Formats: sequence, structure tokens, C-alpha cells
Amino acid sequence: MPAVFSERISRLKGSLVREILAAAQRPEVMSFAGGLPAESLLPRLNWDGLPDRLGQYGSSEGEPVLREKIAEQARGLGIDCQAEQVLILNGSQQALDLASKLFIDPGTPVLLEQPSYLAALQCFELFGAHCLGVPLNADGLDLEVLEAQLKQHRPAFIYLIPTFQNPSGVRYSEACRAALASLLDTYEVTLIEDEPYRELVYDEQRVRPVAARLARASWIYCGSLSKTLVPGMRVGYLIASPDLYLPLLRLKQAADLHSNRLGQWQALQWLGTPQYQAHLETLRDFYRSRRDAMQQRLQAHFADLAEWQLPAGGLFFWLRLHKVQDTRRLLDAALAQNVAFMPGEPFFTDPDAHPGYLRLNFSHVTPERLDEGVGRLAEVVRRGRTGNQA
Amino acid sequence: MPAVFSERISRLKGSLVREILAAAQRPEVMSFAGGLPAESLLPRLNWDGLPDRLGQYGSSEGEPVLREKIAEQARGLGIDCQAEQVLILNGSQQALDLASKLFIDPGTPVLLEQPSYLAALQCFELFGAHCLGVPLNADGLDLEVLEAQLKQHRPAFIYLIPTFQNPSGVRYSEACRAALASLLDTYEVTLIEDEPYRELVYDEQRVRPVAARLARASWIYCGSLSKTLVPGMRVGYLIASPDLYLPLLRLKQAADLHSNRLGQWQALQWLGTPQYQAHLETLRDFYRSRRDAMQQRLQAHFADLAEWQLPAGGLFFWLRLHKVQDTRRLLDAALAQNVAFMPGEPFFTDPDAHPGYLRLNFSHVTPERLDEGVGRLAEVVRRGRTGNQA
Repeated sequence: MPAVFSERISRLKGSLVREILAAAQRPEVMSFAGGLPAESLLPRLNWDGLPDRLGQYGSSEGEPVLREKIAEQARGLGIDCQAEQVLILNGSQQALDLASKLFIDPGTPVLLEQPSYLAALQCFELFGAHCLGVPLNADGLDLEVLEAQLKQHRPAFIYLIPTFQNPSGVRYSEACRAALASLLDTYEVTLIEDEPYRELVYDEQRVRPVAARLARASWIYCGSLSKTLVPGMRVGYLIASPDLYLPLLRLKQAADLHSNRLGQWQALQWLGTPQYQAHLETLRDFYRSRRDAMQQRLQAHFADLAEWQLPAGGLFFWLRLHKVQDTRRLLDAALAQNVAFMPGEPFFTDPDAHPGYLRLNFSHVTPERLDEGVGRLAEVVRRGRTGNQA
Repeated sequence: MPAVFSERISRLKGSLVREILAAAQRPEVMSFAGGLPAESLLPRLNWDGLPDRLGQYGSSEGEPVLREKIAEQARGLGIDCQAEQVLILNGSQQALDLASKLFIDPGTPVLLEQPSYLAALQCFELFGAHCLGVPLNADGLDLEVLEAQLKQHRPAFIYLIPTFQNPSGVRYSEACRAALASLLDTYEVTLIEDEPYRELVYDEQRVRPVAARLARASWIYCGSLSKTLVPGMRVGYLIASPDLYLPLLRLKQAADLHSNRLGQWQALQWLGTPQYQAHLETLRDFYRSRRDAMQQRLQAHFADLAEWQLPAGGLFFWLRLHKVQDTRRLLDAALAQNVAFMPGEPFFTDPDAHPGYLRLNFSHVTPERLDEGVGRLAEVVRRGRTGNQA
């Protein structure tokens, strides 16, 4: 008799991203699939001065000085918060697990962008959420659909990535953010705002987080150091409105007691320093030039195949094919050509209803191989279009 | 309208341990409450040779070389396993979260020792488990009750700490382990075996893990480096029978992608080295002498108040009061006397039915203050007994 699993395990999926990444690890593969920071830009860590006492168990909330620093930076973005509202996490992805535990029973309605971050969708579905998509446009969310959904479903929360959305690259406009905050206040629906890409901005124009605009609705703001500093150290955070903080803290305690203190100490050596600012500038310059090179190669190879927006930040292009086809079926052909990409379908709550998108990372493939890689991928799409897959 | 939480939040408790620890942080408090390693024994970490590439995202399974090393050590304990069965965690406590997700629906029966590790009990209850206690005796589990429970309830798993059990300090005998494994095989009930204290052994007599004795039942074996190396780096692990590994890996991915690589690299610098062996010897000598000092002071102050066994390992004495009283009610009086301890009641599935136990840590309070601390605590118990609480 095999072990009997819980009901939620019937909804447990593997991570497609990580499976594709694994397939793309052969050095000859040019991978547009992942969202890995460029390895050449990982800073060298200096450990001088690490206090021995950090070896001891720490607090579930996180290191007090780090929480203070993060709160200070968030106030700089307009978020009215104190250090007491900051919870340090093992990467900001942990916020999804904690929020799922906090809010989701089987059947609980939750809203998220259509398309949205794959791992968020999978996490909410694992806990049994009824995931409802709100369409995106170039300006942000489709607010009419949003209001209808808020009215009809009374969701437990809405999960959004308003700044350089993953996968679409969309940055919500000022107007959209204002109207959105107003709607969430009206319907008193909790906002989970995820901003891993905020600092990866290539065309300046800073916009305040949506959480900074709320007057009544509860909120969780999630931030990451993985895109700008050192992902392997697993330090992310959430900041929550006071009504949500205590249960989130207790859920963190129950999950793993506390986040590692070595990474927290490293984060503190960087955050808010001139050295970190200089590092961010280096990152932006590097990624901007990679983005621009990608844009050129896409124009050369994909102009007749797809349409897309130039992303103002983040790590991805989001292509919509002129001739719709299920891009999941192109994956094997691409890998046979030593090119990897992310099919767009899994980013939607109902994948089969949204064929014809590709997410392409622009930070990883070196300029020397870029033309070859984009060219091969275009060829795979072209062949797939005629049903003539090699 | 406040945010509406999931049903499980109604079962979310704060961690009493951490609350008492917080109350005990005033330097004048002599704390017998926690299970913290002695700070003077935390090794100094050397970072020479940390590869820059460890800054990048890592695999959800953990670092391959570390997994290999852990599997090798487990095979040395008699556990038949390969590196592919090892999952690196943010401390072994995370195994409880993953196992809860894997097995527990609301109402799922699970077995655990009576008393058992508080955080395990709270984690299983959070997920809605129907927690059933199996009484402990000096030899291990009460096997008659166990068999009756296995027959009657068909639990999803049994959670056990067979080596220097927390809080009782019991080490299961060879005979108990053999009979237990046989019962679990017969009823094909999954074993979760938690061994954070295995290496903290003061009176030699090594016994094979129960997981090493199973022929048919599924199992998860949990290990920690927090008691022997550096808790603040948050590196623990589980090893699972092959049928359980893939869903556990996917649950880990969904929870937080992967464990921090800085701590994993540190663990690898120590595990299996002569330096680590020497460190373990130092720890054992240090803790043994603290245990013996505590035993002396308990005999001086508690002989007429309670009975207890000398623990052969681990970090705790477990006292049973001659005159039963609810020890939770003694906590304020103790803290007023600048002494902290852990009331025994919360370690039971039905606290009110098991009054009259205290868990006392012996690793933290220095010998110079020990007599004073134990004496004050005895006085608090004595006064509580007569209802004459100050």
C-alpha cells in the first residue's frame, strides 16, 4: 500500500521553469528561458567583520538593523511603514507560501494578472485557490474587468507585479496605479504587490508602489535582493499592513524558525551604501545594453512573426505571435536546435485558452551568440507555423 | 471589513518557546527555557575559498557535493540511501512544513510521542491534523498503545524523535526500535524520524535509526546542523524513501526555490572532517559537564519536589513533579525571580490532561549561576505547591 498523500498533492506541479532550466544546462544551449542574473555581475562577497554571534539562532522577524534599513528604503518609495512591519524571508518567493497559508482554503477566489508569475500561480493553486485572471494592457490592468471581478467574486486578495511585470514586462502607469488603489480601497481587497524588478530599470521614470497609495485595504509588499545582489544567499522580505503582520510572522516561525543570518548580514553590508548604488548602475547599464541588442536581433528575425513592446525594465521580452500556435509544442524543436525559451501558455490561469506567446530573457545569452540564438528560435517558430517541425 | 483569513489560521498559535525566550532575554534572567547551543562553542567561520558562482541561484535539491556527503554519513548509520534522496532544507524544521503539506488534510490522523516537540505539534495542528499521542516510557514508545492506534486510526504518518527525545530526553532501546520498525512495516505507516540531537551524546551507546530498520514502510529522516555547528546559517536536511522524494522536492521548490548556498558551503567545509570530529568532542565534553552540574544542583534542590532521569544526550532534563500542578501558572512567578523554564503541558496533544512537568535546558546557564538559578526555580515550585505564589 503506497503512502496516501493529502488532497493538495493532486494539484502539485513541477516547476516548468526549473525543468526547462535543467534541460538548458548543457553549455551549447543558448537559453532565453530563465531569469538568472548575469553571473559576471555577481559581486564578490567580503566577510571581514562578520560577528561570531550571528551563528546563534536568530529572530523569526529577521535582523533588527536590516528590517530598519528596509523600512527606511520603503518609506523612500512612499510606503508608510515601520521596521516592525518588515519580515525577512528566504527569498521573496516565500511570501507566496506564507500568503497562501494565510488566505487560501480550497475554493478561495484570488485574482492575479493574466498572464502572471508562474510560481505564484502554482503556489496559489497548490493551496486550492480558485485563480481568476485580470487581463493586462500596455497601461497596466484592465480596470473594468477588475471591478467586475471584485464585485462578483470578493477575492481574498489580488496578486500583482506592477513594475516590469513577469512575464509581460508591463509597467503600470500612474493613472492605472491610482485607479487600482482606489478600487482596492473601495472593495477592501488585500493587495499582494511583488516588486523583484523595481531596481532593474533602464528607462527612468519612477512610479510609486500601489501599496503606497492604499488608504483602507490591507497589503503585503514583497521585495527581493536576488535580482540585484546575490540570489544564492536567499534573502528577500515582505512588508505588511499591521493587521497582517502577526499571523505572517507566526507562519514564518512554523515554516522554518527564521531566515539565515549570514545572508542577512551580507545584505546589510550593501543596502543603502554608495557601493550598492554603483553596483545597481553597473547592472542597469549592462542589462540595458543587452536589452537593446536583443531588441535589434528581434527586429531582424521576428518582425514578420510576432509583436512586442520594448520593456523599460526587468529581464524579459514578451512576444505575441501573429499566427497563433501552442508554443509548448515548439520546445522540443528549439532544444534540438540548442535554444531554450519559455512558452507563454503556463503563465495563464487557463493555458489552452491563451496560445501564441513566448517569454524571452535577454540577460543571459552573450552578444556574440545572440544573433545565432534569436535566428534559430525564429526558424523554429517559422517551421512550427507551417506545421513542418523538424 | 478586516481581511478574511483561511480556516487554518484559527489553529495558528504563537510559539510559546519563542515567547518565553523573548521574555528571557533580559541579561539578568537565568534561562532554562530554550534549547540554544552555548554561544562560546559556536565555531568561527572561515570564508576563504568561497566560490563567487555560489552567489547564483542554486538547485532546489541542494548542493550536489553536500547531498553526497550527507548520504554517505547516513549510510554509516545504517540508512540505505543515495544522494538523490537528500533534500537540503532551511533548518530541519522545514521538514515538518513540507511533510505537513504532503500528508495532512483537515482531519488526517497522525501519531506522535506524548509528549513531543512543540513546534511539530503546532505545525501538524496548523494543517488540521488530528494529532494522537503515543505514551513514552523509559525504553521508548508504549508499543501496545501504538499498535492499537495504528489499527484503529490508520494514521498518515508517525512523527518520532527516538534519540534524546525532546522534551523527555528518552533514548529508545534497541528492542523498542526493532519492534517499532516491525509494526510500521506491518501497518505500512510512514515514519518521520527527527534526529537533531544524535551527535550530542554523553554516555556512549550508539543505536541505529529506526528508518534504517524499515523494510516496507515509507520514511523521512530529518537531520540538523543547528545543534552541532551553526544554527544561524539555517542548514538542515531530510532524506526520504524514493516514493516520497519527488513531491517533497516540488513542495520545497514552491515554498522558497532553494536553501541558501552560503550555509551549504560552510556545512561542506565541516562535515566529515577531523576538525568537525574534534569540534563534536569539545561540544560533548562541555555539555556533559553542564549536564552533570545540573544533575547535582537538581538533586540538591528538587529531590523532594520531582523525579527525573539523567539524560544520556540532548539538551534537556524532564522533571515530573511529585505534587501535580499546572506549571504554566508558575511562569510569571519564575520570571519575576529572573528564572525562565518551559512548562511541560504544551508538549502534549491535550495539555490540560498532563499537568506537572517541566523541561529544563542545561546548556545555557553558566555553572557560577546554576545553583542560584535552580534554587530559585525550586522555590517557585515549592510556593506554587502551597498555592502561596508571590
